Amino acid sequence: MTAVGITTVSEPPPDGTARIGILVTSDRASLGRYDDLGGPAIRAELGRLLVSPWEEVYRLVADEVDDVAAALTELADARGCSLIVTTGGTGPAPRDMTPEATERVCDKMMPGFGELMRQVSLAKVPTAILSRQTAGIRGRSLIVNLPGKPSAISDCLPAVFPAIPYCLDLIGGAWLETDPAICVAFRPKDGTCCKRPAKGAVPIGGNETTAAG
Amino acid sequence: MTAVGITTVSEPPPDGTARIGILVTSDRASLGRYDDLGGPAIRAELGRLLVSPWEEVYRLVADEVDDVAAALTELADARGCSLIVTTGGTGPAPRDMTPEATERVCDKMMPGFGELMRQVSLAKVPTAILSRQTAGIRGRSLIVNLPGKPSAISDCLPAVFPAIPYCLDLIGGAWLETDPAICVAFRPKDGTCCKRPAKGAVPIGGNETTAAG
Amino acid sequence: MTAVGITTVSEPPPDGTARIGILVTSDRASLGRYDDLGGPAIRAELGRLLVSPWEEVYRLVADEVDDVAAALTELADARGCSLIVTTGGTGPAPRDMTPEATERVCDKMMPGFGELMRQVSLAKVPTAILSRQTAGIRGRSLIVNLPGKPSAISDCLPAVFPAIPYCLDLIGGAWLETDPAICVAFRPKDGTCCKRPAKGAVPIGGNETTAAG
Repeated sequence: MTAVGITTVSEPPPDGTARIGILVTSDRASLGRYDDLGGPAIRAELGRLLVSPWEEVYRLVADEVDDVAAALTELADARGCSLIVTTGGTGPAPRDMTPEATERVCDKMMPGFGELMRQVSLAKVPTAILSRQTAGIRGRSLIVNLPGKPSAISDCLPAVFPAIPYCLDLIGGAWLETDPAICVAFRPKDGTCCKRPAKGAVPIGGNETTAAG
Repeated sequence: MTAVGITTVSEPPPDGTARIGILVTSDRASLGRYDDLGGPAIRAELGRLLVSPWEEVYRLVADEVDDVAAALTELADARGCSLIVTTGGTGPAPRDMTPEATERVCDKMMPGFGELMRQVSLAKVPTAILSRQTAGIRGRSLIVNLPGKPSAISDCLPAVFPAIPYCLDLIGGAWLETDPAICVAFRPKDGTCCKRPAKGAVPIGGNETTAAG
Repeated sequence: MTAVGITTVSEPPPDGTARIGILVTSDRASLGRYDDLGGPAIRAELGRLLVSPWEEVYRLVADEVDDVAAALTELADARGCSLIVTTGGTGPAPRDMTPEATERVCDKMMPGFGELMRQVSLAKVPTAILSRQTAGIRGRSLIVNLPGKPSAISDCLPAVFPAIPYCLDLIGGAWLETDPAICVAFRPKDGTCCKRPAKGAVPIGGNETTAAG
C-alpha cells in the first residue's frame, strides 16, 4: 500500500480503548489538490456519538482499488481497528472503487448497511441511489463505506450507528458505548454476547438468540 | 451432509401436498445444549399462514457452511421441497454462514426478500441491519433465510409470504394457498402461470406479463 | 448476438443527441407469438420524461443469458448508448436471466436502483420482491433493468429517473434534461461534473463532493 498524506502511527491502545480506522479515498486529496473534508466529518461524528474511549488511525489513499484494499487490510490486521469507516469512492464514476475494494477484503458482506444508508439519503436527494456504499466483516473488524460529502456522512453514520456496538460484540471487537442523547445503541437485554470479551477471546455464535441472527 | 438432531424421513407427499423444508442451523442446538426455538416458530407460522395441505421435512445442522449447503441441496433435490425455510446463521458472527451456503447452492438470488425482511425488522430493532438474510432459487425450490429469534421469525415470514405462492407457481413448485384472513397472497388475475402445473411440467417463462418479471 | 425481431439500425447521433438502448428480452415476443408491450411502454415513458434530444436503438432477444449479454455489449460498445433500459427476464422463472446477463457485462453494480424500484413496486403489489432487477455501469453506459409489465415500467422508470442524468454526467455519458413538470432530475448546484463533457473526455472522479460519492 502507498499511504498518501497524513499518516498517524498509533501506539497500541490502552485497555478499553477502541481503535477506529478512518480511510479517505480521494485522488485529489491524496495529491494535495483538495482538502480532505470527509475525514474530519467522520471524526466529528464519532466524537459526537461515542462516550467510551477511542482513538483513530487515519489513512488517505488514491482511488486505486489495490491501494484501498491494502489500506483496509492494514487497518484491520496490523492496526487492529474494530471499526473502519471509509469516505469517498462509492459513486458510479470510473475511479470510484471503494465498494469493490471492501468486498475483496471482507469475509462476509453486510448488505443491510448500504440499504439503510441509501434509504436515509434518499429522503434528502434522489441521487442517493447512485451510492454503492456497503459494509462487511474482516476478522474482528467491521468496515463501513460512507459517501464523500460531509453532509451525507452526517446523515449516514448516525443512521447505522445504533447497530454498530452490538455488531462489534458479535465479532469480538472493541466495546463501544454511545451517548444515549445522540444515539441509542441496541444490545439485547439478555446480555448474550454483550459483555466485553476477554482479550483474545472470540465470542462463539449465539445466533439463535441474537437480534441479528 | 451430517444431519444432526431430529430427522424426519418423509414419505412422498400425496398429490396436492406441498413439502416444506425447515432447516435449523445452530451449533448449540445441534449439540443438544440448547432447545431449538426457531424450528417450532417456523412450524407455527406456516400452520397459521397456510390452508392448503403441506408437510414438513425438518433438519438441524451445525453452523458449518458445507453442512448447511448439503442440507439445502438434500431438501431441494432429494426431498423435493418446494419451499425451504432456514433459521439461524444470518448474523455477523464468525460462525454465521447460512447466507453464504444459500448463495452457494442457488441458481439465482432473490435480493428483494432480504431487503423487505430487514426493513420490517428495522421498525422493531435497529440491529436488523446486521441480518444478512437472503433468498434464492434452486431448481424448483425457493430457499428463504429467516433470523434465529422466534419473534423475528414472526415478523419476517408473514412479511414475505404474500409473494411466495406465486413464486412457487413461476418455478414449477407446489401449489400453496394462504388463509386470506392472515395473509393475502397475490396471484395475477389473468391466471398466467397460476394454475397448478401438471406433474413434471415446468412453467415456461411468462415474464412479459408477470407482476415479478 | 442474434438480434430477433425489429432491429433499428441508427445513424450516429448528431451532436447533443443522446442514444438510448431499449432491450426487450422475451422468448415469446422474439418468436412473434406475443406483441412486445414492454418496449413501447419504455419508449412512451422516455418521451414523457425527456426534453433533451434523444434517439433509440431497439433490440429484441430471447431469454438466453448469452444473447442478452451480447445485446447489452453491442448497445453499449458498438452503438454508444449512454443509457440502456431492459424489460423482461427479471423474475424467478427458469428463463429469467436478465440480471445475470447485466452483472456479467457490467464493470460495477448499482444496487440502489433495484432497491428503490422494488420499494416503489411493493406499494402496489406484494410480489414486487420477486423482481431481481438491478442496474450497473459498463464503460460510459448505464444499464437499468425494468420489469416486463407495462404498468410496472411506469412505476419503476420515473422512480429512478431523477438520478439518471447526473449518473450519466459522472460516467461521461450523454447530457439528458428532463421535463421538470414530470421529473425533477438532481444535479449538484456547484456544477461539478455537470457540464456536458467535451467529446471524448471522461470526467475524473469528483467523488469527494458529489451527492453520490
